[in-house]
Amino acid sequence: QSSVTMYGVADLSLAKSNGVSAQMSGNGVMNNGNSRLGVRGVEDLGGGLKASFNFEQGINAETGATDANTFQRNAYLALSGGFGKFQLGRALNPSFWGVAAWELTGTANYSAVANQFGFAGGPSRNNSMFMYTTPNMGGFSGTLGYVAKPDNGGNAKVDANLTYANGPLAVALSYFKVKGTDKGLALGAAYDFGMFKLAASLQDAPGASKGFTLGGTVPVGPVALTLDIARENGTGMKNTDVLVEAKYALSKRTFTYAAYYKDGDAGGGVYKTGAKNHLGLGIRHNF
Amino acid sequence: QSSVTMYGVADLSLAKSNGVSAQMSGNGVMNNGNSRLGVRGVEDLGGGLKASFNFEQGINAETGATDANTFQRNAYLALSGGFGKFQLGRALNPSFWGVAAWELTGTANYSAVANQFGFAGGPSRNNSMFMYTTPNMGGFSGTLGYVAKPDNGGNAKVDANLTYANGPLAVALSYFKVKGTDKGLALGAAYDFGMFKLAASLQDAPGASKGFTLGGTVPVGPVALTLDIARENGTGMKNTDVLVEAKYALSKRTFTYAAYYKDGDAGGGVYKTGAKNHLGLGIRHNF
Amino acid sequence: QSSVTMYGVADLSLAKSNGVSAQMSGNGVMNNGNSRLGVRGVEDLGGGLKASFNFEQGINAETGATDANTFQRNAYLALSGGFGKFQLGRALNPSFWGVAAWELTGTANYSAVANQFGFAGGPSRNNSMFMYTTPNMGGFSGTLGYVAKPDNGGNAKVDANLTYANGPLAVALSYFKVKGTDKGLALGAAYDFGMFKLAASLQDAPGASKGFTLGGTVPVGPVALTLDIARENGTGMKNTDVLVEAKYALSKRTFTYAAYYKDGDAGGGVYKTGAKNHLGLGIRHNF
Repeated sequence: QSSVTMYGVADLSLAKSNGVSAQMSGNGVMNNGNSRLGVRGVEDLGGGLKASFNFEQGINAETGATDANTFQRNAYLALSGGFGKFQLGRALNPSFWGVAAWELTGTANYSAVANQFGFAGGPSRNNSMFMYTTPNMGGFSGTLGYVAKPDNGGNAKVDANLTYANGPLAVALSYFKVKGTDKGLALGAAYDFGMFKLAASLQDAPGASKGFTLGGTVPVGPVALTLDIARENGTGMKNTDVLVEAKYALSKRTFTYAAYYKDGDAGGGVYKTGAKNHLGLGIRHNF
Repeated sequence: QSSVTMYGVADLSLAKSNGVSAQMSGNGVMNNGNSRLGVRGVEDLGGGLKASFNFEQGINAETGATDANTFQRNAYLALSGGFGKFQLGRALNPSFWGVAAWELTGTANYSAVANQFGFAGGPSRNNSMFMYTTPNMGGFSGTLGYVAKPDNGGNAKVDANLTYANGPLAVALSYFKVKGTDKGLALGAAYDFGMFKLAASLQDAPGASKGFTLGGTVPVGPVALTLDIARENGTGMKNTDVLVEAKYALSKRTFTYAAYYKDGDAGGGVYKTGAKNHLGLGIRHNF
Repeated sequence: QSSVTMYGVADLSLAKSNGVSAQMSGNGVMNNGNSRLGVRGVEDLGGGLKASFNFEQGINAETGATDANTFQRNAYLALSGGFGKFQLGRALNPSFWGVAAWELTGTANYSAVANQFGFAGGPSRNNSMFMYTTPNMGGFSGTLGYVAKPDNGGNAKVDANLTYANGPLAVALSYFKVKGTDKGLALGAAYDFGMFKLAASLQDAPGASKGFTLGGTVPVGPVALTLDIARENGTGMKNTDVLVEAKYALSKRTFTYAAYYKDGDAGGGVYKTGAKNHLGLGIRHNF
C-alpha cells in the first residue's frame, strides 16, 4: 500500500512599501506564503510501521525562479510507528513547529512573530537534520532535532519543542542551541474562545534580543481579522512590529488577503523587513 | 471540486546549420518546440468562479538542463468567471496570444513569423504581469496585460491583443509598449478553406523593423505541409525568412517533423538564428 | 492510450569516513543510491509502436539541492516497436546497462565495481545520445549509442553493449570509445544458484587501468549479504577495493542498509572515493 501526492501553493500579491512604488510580489514579506510545488508519499510497511517522504520546492510566481537549493523547503525521509517518528534530511525544524502551534497567521510571510523574532530567534529549516518526534500522549508531544558538527558549519545544533495541543488550547516551548553560541527560546500559547482566538508568547532569541508577542483573531463570516503585535525589549533594540490582516475565504483552499505591516526595527533587531510600512493585497490558492 | 494535472512535451531533433556539423538539438531553432514539464489545476469556487494555476518548466532534453528561472515558461495564478479572467504572475503575454491565433506552425521554434519579428517585435513572456481577458463575445475577445514600473526595469509595460476567432476565420491585433520606447504592432489573420489554410500578417516592431508574412498549410492525409514567408522591409534590414515544414502525425499527441529554415537576416534585423540555412528532422511527443 | 507516472527515490544515511566525523549523507559514496524524482510516460501509437519519455532529476535530500543540469539523470524521448527501441537525449549509456546486467548491488553508490572502474572506465550517462536497442532474441540483446562530434567536445563517441540474460545467467560486454582516445571494455557475468549469487568481471578501462572483480550475494531471510572485490592491476595502480553490504528489506520498495567500503586507491586509479575506509548505515525508499 502506498500513495504519492502532488500538492502546492500559488500566492501572489500587489504590495507597496515605503520608498518603493506599488508592484507585484511573489514570495515577499507581503505575501501570505511562498508559492511552492511538492510531492509526498506514504508506504504502509505493515505492523503499524510507515515509510514516508517529502520533496518540496519553492517557486517565485513573479518570475518562475526557484531557490539555490531547489527542494530546500523539504527533502526528507521518515519512518513512523508506535514509537513516534524518526526523520532524516532537510526540513522545518522543531522550533518552527513549536511556534506554528500557537502563531495566529499560519506563519505567514507577514507574521509579526516570525518577522520580529524568527523561530525562537532561528531559521525555519535545517539541512541534514536527524529528527525524532514522540507519539501524541493526551495532547503532549515533543520533537528533538540534531544536526551533526560537520553538517552545521563545524558546530552541532540541537533544536527541540515541547507541545501541548488539545481542544481549544495550544502551548509550546521552542528551543535551539548551536554549540558555542547562545540558546534561543520561545514559549507561546493560543486559546480559541470560539468568538475569537488569542495568542501570546515570550521570546528570548540568541544574543540580546528578547520580548513578547500578543494578538487575536476574530472570524466574521467568511472574513478573519487578525491583529498581532511583537515587542522587542532587548538592550538598544526596543521596537514594536504590528500586523493587521484580513482574510476572505473563497473556498477551503483559496482566499484573498489584505495586510498592513509596521516594522519597528529602525533601532535594530534580529529580523528586519527593509522598510517601515508595508501594504499587501493578494490571493493564495492551495492545491 | 478541484484537479491537478501534470503534462509536458518531449521534443528532440537532428539538426544541421551552415558552419556546424549535424548534431542533436533540444530547444533549438530546428526543434518544433522546447521540451517541458508542467503542472496545472483548477478549483471550482462555486457561483461560476474558478481559481486556477500553472507552473511550467522548460527542459533541454539533450542535457536535462532547465532555465535560469526554473519555471519561467509559466508561473501564475488566475481567477475566472462571468467577468472574464484575471491573472497574476509570469506568463505568455497578450501579444504572443494574438500572434498564436493565426500563426501556422503553432509558434514552433522554427516559426518564420516569430524568428523574423518575435511577437509584434517583443518577447513571448513577461514577469510580474497583471493580465485581464474579456469573456468570449461571439468570437471577439481581448486581453490586456500590465507590468508595473519597478517590475519592468523602471518602465511600465502595456501588452494587449484584440482577437476574433470564429469557425474558419481568426484575426488578431497584437500590441505592446514599454514606456519611453516605440510600440510594437502585429495584425494577422488566418482562414481555413478546408483543403488548405492561409495566413498573413502586417508587422511593425519597435524601431525600424516592419514587414509582412504570408503562408499556407496543406494537409495531405497524415502529413501537413507548410510554407511560410516573413519579409522584413525596414530601412537597412530588407530580408526574407522562409520556412518549409512537413509534419507526419503518429497520433494526436505525437508527430515527426522535417523542416528547412532560411534566415535572410544577413543585413540585420530584430531576430536572428545565427546561420543562413537550417535543416531539422525531429519528433515531438505531447503528454 | 497513454500514461504518465511520477516515481522516485529517497535515500539518506549516517556515514563515517577516515578523517571526517560521522555525519548525514545524501548522494554520497555511502548511500545506496541518489535521491531522485522522475516522470515517465508511454503512449501506444497503434501497430505495436510506442512513444515514451522520461525526465528524472536528482535531489540531495540533505539540503534539497539538485544538479547543475537539473534533469541530468534522464531526459529522453523514445520510439519502440518490433524493430527494437530508438532513443534520443540524455540517458544512462549502453556500457552502464552492460555492467548493471551482472553487478551485484544494483550499481549502488558504494558499488566496488563502479567505484574502482566506473562503467567500462567511463561515466554512467551521456548527453545528446542517439541510442538503438535490438529486440530481445532468446535472451540476447544489444544496444548501440552514438554522440555526434559537436555534442561530445569535438570527438564523437560510440558506446555499446551485448547482453545475454536468461533465467539464472546474465553475461554482458560493455564497450565505449571516444574518437582519438583509448577504448573501454568490461566483460562480466552473474549466476544465481538460488542459495547464493556470484558475479565476476574483467575490466579494461581506457589508459593503463585494468583488472577484475569478484563477488557474491547470500540472501538470509529478509537480509541480503554481499561481498564484492574490485582489483585494479594496471601499471603503477595496483590496489583492491572491497565492499561488504547488508540489506534488510522493510518491504519490496523500502530497505535499510549497512555497508563498509575499503578504497585501495592510495596508489592512484581511475576512480577514488576520497578516503581509505567508509562506513554507512542508511535507508532507501523507492516510490
